[in-house]
Amino acid sequence: MTKWVYSFGDGKAEGSAEMRDLLGGKGANLAEMCAIGLPVPPGFTISTEVCTWFYDHDRCYPDDLPAAVDTALAGIEATVGARFGDAGNPLLVSVRSGARASMPGMMDTVLNLGLNDETVAGLATASGDERFAWDSYRRFIQMYGDVVLDLDHYDFESLLEQVKDEQGAQLDTELDAEHLKDLVGRYKAMVEDRLGKPFPMDPRDQLWGAVGAVFGSWMNQRAMTYRRLHRIPDEWGTAVNVQAMVFGNMGNDCATGVAFTRDPSTGENRFYGEYLVNAQGEDVVAGIRTPQNLTLAGKTAQGSDKPAMEESMPEIFGQLVAVRERLERHYRDMQDIEFTVQAGKLWMLQTRSGKRTTAAALKIAVEMAQDGLITRAEAIERIDPASLDQLLHPTLDPDAEVTLFARGLPASPGAASGTVVFDADLAEQKAAAGESVILARVETSPEDIHGMHAAKGIFTTRGGMTSHAAVVARGMGRPCVAGAGDVRIDYQSRTMSCGGRTVSEGDKVTLDGAAGTIMLGAVATIEPKFSGEFETLMGWADEIRRMRVRTNAETPEDARTARKFGAEGIGLCRTEHMFFEGDRIVAMREMILASDEAGRRRALDKLLPMQRRDFADLFEIMAGLPVTIRLLDPPLHEFLPHEEDEMQQVADAAGTTLEEVKRRLARLDETNPMLGHRGCRLAISYPEICEMQARAIFEAAVDVAEKSGETVIPEVMIPLAATRQEIDLLKEVIDRVADEVRGDRGVTLDYMVGTMIELPRAALRAGDIAESAAFFSFGTNDLTQTTFGMSRDDAGNFLETYLQKKIVEIDPFVSIDTAGVGELVEIAAERGRRTRPDIKLGICGEHGGDPASIAFCETVGLDYVSCSPYRVPIARLAAAQAAAAKGRDGA
Amino acid sequence: MTKWVYSFGDGKAEGSAEMRDLLGGKGANLAEMCAIGLPVPPGFTISTEVCTWFYDHDRCYPDDLPAAVDTALAGIEATVGARFGDAGNPLLVSVRSGARASMPGMMDTVLNLGLNDETVAGLATASGDERFAWDSYRRFIQMYGDVVLDLDHYDFESLLEQVKDEQGAQLDTELDAEHLKDLVGRYKAMVEDRLGKPFPMDPRDQLWGAVGAVFGSWMNQRAMTYRRLHRIPDEWGTAVNVQAMVFGNMGNDCATGVAFTRDPSTGENRFYGEYLVNAQGEDVVAGIRTPQNLTLAGKTAQGSDKPAMEESMPEIFGQLVAVRERLERHYRDMQDIEFTVQAGKLWMLQTRSGKRTTAAALKIAVEMAQDGLITRAEAIERIDPASLDQLLHPTLDPDAEVTLFARGLPASPGAASGTVVFDADLAEQKAAAGESVILARVETSPEDIHGMHAAKGIFTTRGGMTSHAAVVARGMGRPCVAGAGDVRIDYQSRTMSCGGRTVSEGDKVTLDGAAGTIMLGAVATIEPKFSGEFETLMGWADEIRRMRVRTNAETPEDARTARKFGAEGIGLCRTEHMFFEGDRIVAMREMILASDEAGRRRALDKLLPMQRRDFADLFEIMAGLPVTIRLLDPPLHEFLPHEEDEMQQVADAAGTTLEEVKRRLARLDETNPMLGHRGCRLAISYPEICEMQARAIFEAAVDVAEKSGETVIPEVMIPLAATRQEIDLLKEVIDRVADEVRGDRGVTLDYMVGTMIELPRAALRAGDIAESAAFFSFGTNDLTQTTFGMSRDDAGNFLETYLQKKIVEIDPFVSIDTAGVGELVEIAAERGRRTRPDIKLGICGEHGGDPASIAFCETVGLDYVSCSPYRVPIARLAAAQAAAAKGRDGA
Repeated sequence: MTKWVYSFGDGKAEGSAEMRDLLGGKGANLAEMCAIGLPVPPGFTISTEVCTWFYDHDRCYPDDLPAAVDTALAGIEATVGARFGDAGNPLLVSVRSGARASMPGMMDTVLNLGLNDETVAGLATASGDERFAWDSYRRFIQMYGDVVLDLDHYDFESLLEQVKDEQGAQLDTELDAEHLKDLVGRYKAMVEDRLGKPFPMDPRDQLWGAVGAVFGSWMNQRAMTYRRLHRIPDEWGTAVNVQAMVFGNMGNDCATGVAFTRDPSTGENRFYGEYLVNAQGEDVVAGIRTPQNLTLAGKTAQGSDKPAMEESMPEIFGQLVAVRERLERHYRDMQDIEFTVQAGKLWMLQTRSGKRTTAAALKIAVEMAQDGLITRAEAIERIDPASLDQLLHPTLDPDAEVTLFARGLPASPGAASGTVVFDADLAEQKAAAGESVILARVETSPEDIHGMHAAKGIFTTRGGMTSHAAVVARGMGRPCVAGAGDVRIDYQSRTMSCGGRTVSEGDKVTLDGAAGTIMLGAVATIEPKFSGEFETLMGWADEIRRMRVRTNAETPEDARTARKFGAEGIGLCRTEHMFFEGDRIVAMREMILASDEAGRRRALDKLLPMQRRDFADLFEIMAGLPVTIRLLDPPLHEFLPHEEDEMQQVADAAGTTLEEVKRRLARLDETNPMLGHRGCRLAISYPEICEMQARAIFEAAVDVAEKSGETVIPEVMIPLAATRQEIDLLKEVIDRVADEVRGDRGVTLDYMVGTMIELPRAALRAGDIAESAAFFSFGTNDLTQTTFGMSRDDAGNFLETYLQKKIVEIDPFVSIDTAGVGELVEIAAERGRRTRPDIKLGICGEHGGDPASIAFCETVGLDYVSCSPYRVPIARLAAAQAAAAKGRDGA
Repeated sequence: MTKWVYSFGDGKAEGSAEMRDLLGGKGANLAEMCAIGLPVPPGFTISTEVCTWFYDHDRCYPDDLPAAVDTALAGIEATVGARFGDAGNPLLVSVRSGARASMPGMMDTVLNLGLNDETVAGLATASGDERFAWDSYRRFIQMYGDVVLDLDHYDFESLLEQVKDEQGAQLDTELDAEHLKDLVGRYKAMVEDRLGKPFPMDPRDQLWGAVGAVFGSWMNQRAMTYRRLHRIPDEWGTAVNVQAMVFGNMGNDCATGVAFTRDPSTGENRFYGEYLVNAQGEDVVAGIRTPQNLTLAGKTAQGSDKPAMEESMPEIFGQLVAVRERLERHYRDMQDIEFTVQAGKLWMLQTRSGKRTTAAALKIAVEMAQDGLITRAEAIERIDPASLDQLLHPTLDPDAEVTLFARGLPASPGAASGTVVFDADLAEQKAAAGESVILARVETSPEDIHGMHAAKGIFTTRGGMTSHAAVVARGMGRPCVAGAGDVRIDYQSRTMSCGGRTVSEGDKVTLDGAAGTIMLGAVATIEPKFSGEFETLMGWADEIRRMRVRTNAETPEDARTARKFGAEGIGLCRTEHMFFEGDRIVAMREMILASDEAGRRRALDKLLPMQRRDFADLFEIMAGLPVTIRLLDPPLHEFLPHEEDEMQQVADAAGTTLEEVKRRLARLDETNPMLGHRGCRLAISYPEICEMQARAIFEAAVDVAEKSGETVIPEVMIPLAATRQEIDLLKEVIDRVADEVRGDRGVTLDYMVGTMIELPRAALRAGDIAESAAFFSFGTNDLTQTTFGMSRDDAGNFLETYLQKKIVEIDPFVSIDTAGVGELVEIAAERGRRTRPDIKLGICGEHGGDPASIAFCETVGLDYVSCSPYRVPIARLAAAQAAAAKGRDGA
C-alpha cells in the first residue's frame, strides 16, 4: 500500500530533505528541520504521488487517502492540544503547495483554515482578542474565496471598502470586531450569491477544498507556462503541506520575518533579514509596513531608525542566529528562511536554498569551499553556467528610469545605448566617427557583418533566438534584441514605429539584450568586472573538466577576447566572414562572376595575401594552440549585391554588363540555399578556391612558426560533407598545396584535415569518412536543421507553437535534441572511433556554448566544445560540471 | 601463382561461359562455343585480373605474363599449323577487347596482326593472292596506327586518296598489289614521321602494343562516361582476346555475316541475319555493300533480288541453322552471332545475348517460358523494368526527319508535338480550344499544374530529373524535357532562343522525353499498344511478387490510368494539388489570408464539399482498394499570387488592401521553404485545416460505402512529422472528427492514421512514432533531401559535377542511396516493427517507381511501393524480380 501522507512535528518527521521529489521542496525541508530539532509547527505533507494519481484518475483521490489525512490531522491535534473544528479550542492550519522545484504561478497559501462561525469564538478565547479572531476569519474567507473558490479578489475588496466607508475608516485597523463580524456576514452572503451555495463551514470540507485547489493549480496556465520556460516536467506534480497555524500577529511579543543566511546580493557572509512585530508573513512581503532589520549592522548600513531584532528581541535573535548556523552547517548552502514568533516563541516556517545573484553565488560557493563546508566540485556545481553571462556584459543600471519602446527576444545579453541607424554602411561610418550606434534591421545577413561589428547593439524585427542576427551578435558579444514583431521598420523614411511611437534615424535608444527590451533615450549602464572568486572558481573548473574549450572566432578581436576568457584554441574559424570587408568583397565578387577558371584564379590571387594575413593573425594570437579553419561554406549568392546600383558597380569592376551580372545572379539564386550549392560543394566545383585557402593557411602557418618559433599545426576543416569521396577529393588538393608550400619554403609542415559532421548522412557514414578525416567537428546547427527538416530562419513561424503545445520540450537550436540529433552524434562518434580510435571529436555549433548540450557532449566523450568568445567561461564551467556528474555516475 | 591466360581451340577450352567476370563476355563465350564443339578459330584470353593488376601497378604487367602469352601463342600455332612472324607461313591474329558487360567506347579490334614486310609475302603465298595480302597489310597498318599508335585516321585516308588520285581510281578495289605496296610505303613513312620511330615490324611488339592499347582504352574518356551512365564499376576491367585470323575475303567461297537467332525487333521466332560474300566483318557493319539475307523468308520479306545464303551456300546455311539451334538450347536466350566462312568452312567468331527492343524481349521471354526453355521467373528477370516505359508512351517515328532545337534532360518519356506556350493559363485556354500545346517554362511550380495537365508535353530550362516539372510530368505521364540550360526563355517577348535560333509562342515544336530533345516543327509519332505477351508476363510477375504496388494519384484520370496499369490502391494522394483549380484557389487564398480562426473556418467550409467530392471520386475508382490521403503539405505561400494584379484581385475578394496582402505575403515568405512552415506544422498551427480534411475524407468514405456497399477504409497520412507528439495532437483532431461523422451519419467507420517518414529524426524516433502511427510511408524524396542536405531544386548546380567526379554513383533522387538514406529506412522499419509488429510499411517517393530502389524495398521487407501511374507496370515487374532475387538469395 502506498504511503500518501508524511507527518512531522514535535522533533520527529516521517520525511527528510532527501525526499524532495516525493514531498516537494517545502515539505521535505519542514520535515528535515523538524528532524534536526528546530522548532517547526506540526503538520503533514500529502505527497506528489497523490498529484500524479489525481491526474491519472480524472482528478479523483486514492481511496485510502482520506483515512491517512485523518490520522495525520489527529497527530497535529495531539501535538498542539487543539482540535480541528472544535468550537472551544480549534486547531487552525495553513495549506500550502510545494513542488520539487520552486514554482511561482501555482496556488500558494491558505491561512487560518478551520475557522467558521463557531471556531472563530474559540480563537477569540484562545487569543484573548476578539478583533484578531474576526479579522483572521474575514481574511480566511477572503483568501479561500479567492484561491479555492475562484471568486474575484475585487469583490471582497469592495465589500471591505464599503464597510470602511460606512464607518468613515481610512485603515483596516480602524475597524473593530463588530465591524468585522458585519463584514464576514457580507462576505458569506456574496459568496453564496456568486456560487449558489454557502461558504463551507465544515473544516474538513474547507481542507479538501484547499487540497483540491493546490492540485488543480498544478495545471493552470501560469504554472504550465512557468514549467515550460524552466523545463520542469508536468509529471513531477506538487505536494500539499498542511500545518498548524502559528500567529505573528497576536500582540507585541509576536513577530514574523524572512532572512538569508548570507547576503543574497553580494554573497558576503553576514546574516541578512527583516522582520515585523505583530504581523503575519504576508505583511512583510506585501510591503505595507516597512520591515525592520534583523541585525544592528544591517540597521546601520541602511540608516534605519527602527530597532533591529538584535536589540528589540535579543533572546529570539540569539535563537535565530543559532538556527542560521545550524541550517548552513546542515544544508551546506546559503538558506532563505521564514520564521514567526508567537508569544515569545520562535517557529521556523520554511527553509530553502536562497536565490542569489551570480556574483553572490560565486562568492558563497568559493568561500564555503575554502571553509571546507563543501568540496570544490560542489562549489562548481552550485553555479548555473548560463548565469555567468550576467558577469561578462555591461548591464542596465537598475536605478535608471526607462521608457519602453518595444519588446523582442533576449537574443544576446548585455546593454548598450546609441543612435539608431538602419543600414550597416552607415553604422560603420558613424562608428568610425566615434559615435555609438545601434543597428536596427528587419533582419540581418552576412553583408551586414561590418555594421554589426561597428554597432554597440543589434535590433531586428524578424527572426528568433537563433537567427543570423542573434547568432552573430552572441558570437561578437554584442547585445541583441531580435524578432520584435510589433515594430515596423520603414527603410524609406528611415524610421521605426511601434505602439504609436516613432523613432527616427539618429535618435538615441538603449537595448537590454538580457531582457529583450528596447528603450527610448540613453539609459545608464554599468560595466562588468571579474571578482577574485570568479577567477578562483574557473580555476577549479579547469582542474576538473576533461573536455577542452575552444572558441568560434575569425577576427583578431574575437580571438583575443576568447583567450582572455580562457579559450584553448579556435574550434571554428568561418573564413567567409573574412570576405565581406573593403576590397575583399570586390575581389570575391570578381571571383564569383568570372566566366572561367582563369578568371577565378586571377581574383583568388588578390584574396590570397589577405587571407594569409587573417590566418597569421589568428595563429599568432593563439600561440601554438590548435586552430581549426573551415573552408568557404555559404552559397556564393550571399556575397553578391541585391541593389541595382551595386550590381552596376560590380558589372563595371568586372568589365561586364548589368544584364550579365543579373543573369549570373539569377543563376545563383536558390530555392533552398541551406540545402544548395554551398559547403564543400563549392570547392568540389571550384577546386581553385580550396587551393587558395589551403595556401593561405599553410603559408601563414610557416610564417608564424618562423617568426615565433612556436609550431603551428593548422586543422583544415571541410564543411557539409555527405560522403567520404568529397573529403578524398579535397584532401588531394590540400595535400598537394601543402607539398608545394613545403617545397617553396623548404620547411616541414604539419597539419590535419578533418570535416564537419553536419548532415545526417555524414553521421551515418562516419565510419567511412573517418578513413579520410583526422577529426570531426559536429556542426549541430545544420545537423539540427536537416535532422528535423527545420530551417532556423523560418522556424519562427511555428516553433513557438511547438513549444506551447509541448511537441518539443525546448528549442532544439538552443539545447541539443539528444533523442534525435543526439543519436546521430553518438552514431558518428562511435563509428568514427571504430575506424580511427584516436580521432579528435569536437562540437562547434551554437550548442557548444549551451550547458545542457555540453553535458551531452561529455556523455558522448567529445574531446572539446567550441563556442562564441563570450560563452567560453560558461562552457568551461559547464564542462567541469559535466565531468563531475559523469564521475559521480561512474562511481 | 595466378593464371593470367586462358586458351581455347580445337574443341577444348580452359574457360567457359560462367567465367564472364574473369574472361569478359566475348572471351567466355568463345571458350564456351569451343567447348561445346562449335568451330571457333583457336586463341586465348588475357584475363580481366591482368587489367586490374595493370592499373594497380602503374600500367605494368605481371612478370609471368609474357611467358604465359608465349605458351598460348604456341598453342595457336600448333593448332593452325602456322607460326607467328614466319615469313613462309605466318600466323595472323586478331586482338579484341572484351569486358564483363558489353561496352562501346573502348578500343574494339585490331585485325591481321602479325603482318610485316616479310610475312606479307607468306600471306600472299598462302592465299595465292598478292593483292589480298598487301591490302590486308595496309588495312592492318591503318587500323593499328589509328587505335594503337593513336594517329589520326584522316592522315591514312588522305594518303589513300592521294594514291587513288594519282592512279585515276574511284574505288579502293581499282588499286592493284603494286599500288598497295606503294601505299604501305607511304603509310610507314608517315608513321615514322609522326612518331619519330618506325612502324613496329616485330609481330610480338605489335601484339604487346595492341594488348596495351586495349587495357589503356579501359580508362579513356568515352569508356568512363559510358560506365558512369550504365553504372559499370571501374574495378571490373577488360579482358583481351587474341585469336587466329580467318578470312571471309579470300574469294567467292568466303563470306562473313551476323545473325540473330530470333528477330530482335519483334521477337518473332525466326532466324534473322545478313551476310556478304568475299568480305571482312567490318564490311557488313560499314554498310558500303548492301548485305544479303540469310534466309529465303527474309529475302522475300525485304523484296531483295540478291540470293539468300539459304540458296547460295545451302550447306553452310544448314550448318548455321544447326548452330542457331544449338546456341539457343545451350544459352537459353536469343543470341547475336558473328561468323566467317573461309574457303567453304564455317567459323564462329562471337556469340552473345542479342540486344532487342522491349517488345521483342517480352515476346522472346514469354515464348521461351511457354516452350519450357526457361522458367517463368527467368522470363521475368529477362526484362529490364525501366524498358517497359517504351511501351507505355507514344514515341517518335524513327523514320521521321528532325531539326534539333536544343537538348535537356530526359525527364519523362514519350514524345509529343504542339504549339509552344509560355504560361499555364494560355496552355489551358488553347488546350480547351482543342489545340495541342507544349508548355515551356524556366521552371514550374504547383501553380502551373493546370497548364501542365492541359499540355501534351513540358519543357523547362532549369531543374533536374527530379525538379517539380519532371516529377509532376512523370506522374501525369506527360513527356518532359527539363533543365535545357542553353535555352533562354524571354517571357516578355514570348520567345525562346538557343544557338542562334528563336522559337516564338505559337510555333510548333516536338519533345522527345526519352531522349531529352526538343525539335523544331511537328515530328510524326507512333502510339503504344500492349501486346498479349505484355499481359502474360505481367500476370506472371503478379504471381511472384510479394510487395503490393500502389499509385500516387489525386485526379480521377490518374487514378483510372493507374488501375488500368494494375495499381492496387493509392499510396499517396497529395491533397494540395486539389486546391489550385478554379474556385478552390480563391477559397484557399481566402483561408490563408484570414486574420483569425473564424475567417479560416469560413473559407474552409467552402473547400469542404469540393474536397469531399475529390475523395469520393477516388474511393469510387479504387473500389475498396486502400487509399492513403496525405494532409495538406506545402508551405502556404505556394498558393498565393506573385503578380501585383493578382494580389489586387485577392485583396478585393478578401475585402482587404493590396498593402495588407503584400504584408501577409512577406510574412509567409521563407528562406528555405523546404524546411519551413509546411507538412503537419500547418495543421499543428491551424488544426481547423486538418479538421476540414478529415471530415471530407470520412464523409466521402461514408457516402461511397453507402452507395457501393463496398467498405472504404481510408488511410489518413500525416506529413513531415519529426516527433510522436505531432501525430498524437493531430490524431486527436482526426479521431474527434471521425466520432462526429459517426454520430451525424449513424454509421460505423474504420480508418487508419499513419505518417510519412521523411525526416531523419522521424526515422530515428520510429519506435516512438509507431506507438501512434498505424502505418509508415517512406517519403524518400524529402528524406534524401534532408539526409544529404541537398535540395532537389538546387542540386542541378552541382549534382552533375558530383556524378562526373564519382562522388555519388547515381543521382540519389533517382535511385535510393542505400548506404545513407537506406540505413535510415532500415532503422525506421526495424524500430517501427519492434513497437508495432503489424505496422504497414510502404514507400511513396519517386523511388517507388525505380527498379533498383524497389529491390532495396524488398530487402527491407516493405509491404508496398507507390509510384506514378505510368510507372505501375515497371514497379510490378521490378517487385517480382526483387522477390525472385530474394528467394534465390534465401535458397
